[in-house]
Amino acid sequence: MCIPKAYLRHNHEETLVMEDIDTITWETPTHFVLRDITGKSLHIEGKILSMDLLEHRILLEGHVFD
Amino acid sequence: MCIPKAYLRHNHEETLVMEDIDTITWETPTHFVLRDITGKSLHIEGKILSMDLLEHRILLEGHVFD
Repeated sequence: MCIPKAYLRHNHEETLVMEDIDTITWETPTHFVLRDITGKSLHIEGKILSMDLLEHRILLEGHVFD
Repeated sequence: MCIPKAYLRHNHEETLVMEDIDTITWETPTHFVLRDITGKSLHIEGKILSMDLLEHRILLEGHVFD
C-alpha cells in the first residue's frame, strides 16, 4: 500500500502515531486533523516538518490532543 | 500510481501546479517546497488547505514564487 504513516518527533525520537492516513485537514494554522482509512481521527497541535510521500512518511512536531 | 497532485485554489478556482509529488518540506511556517519525482521543485508561500491521500490530491492556497 502507498498510504503514509505519521510520526511525531520529540526529543530526537520519533513515535508512530497513526498508520494508513487518508486525509489531513487544518482547523487552524497549528491545529490539524489526521484521519485514517477507517475514519479514526487524531488532532495535533503543532506542525508538519516534512512529508515523504514515496517513503509514505509524514513527520510531525507538536502534541496529540483530544 | 498513488502519488498526489497539488492544486492551488484562487478565487474559487483550482489550478494544477504540480504532479507526481514526492516530498513537501517547510522552510518557514508559510513557505514550503513541493518536489516531484523528477526532482523539480516549486516554492509556495501560503498554506495547505487539505490533503486527500487516497484521492491523491493536495489543495493549496497562496502563490508560487521562484
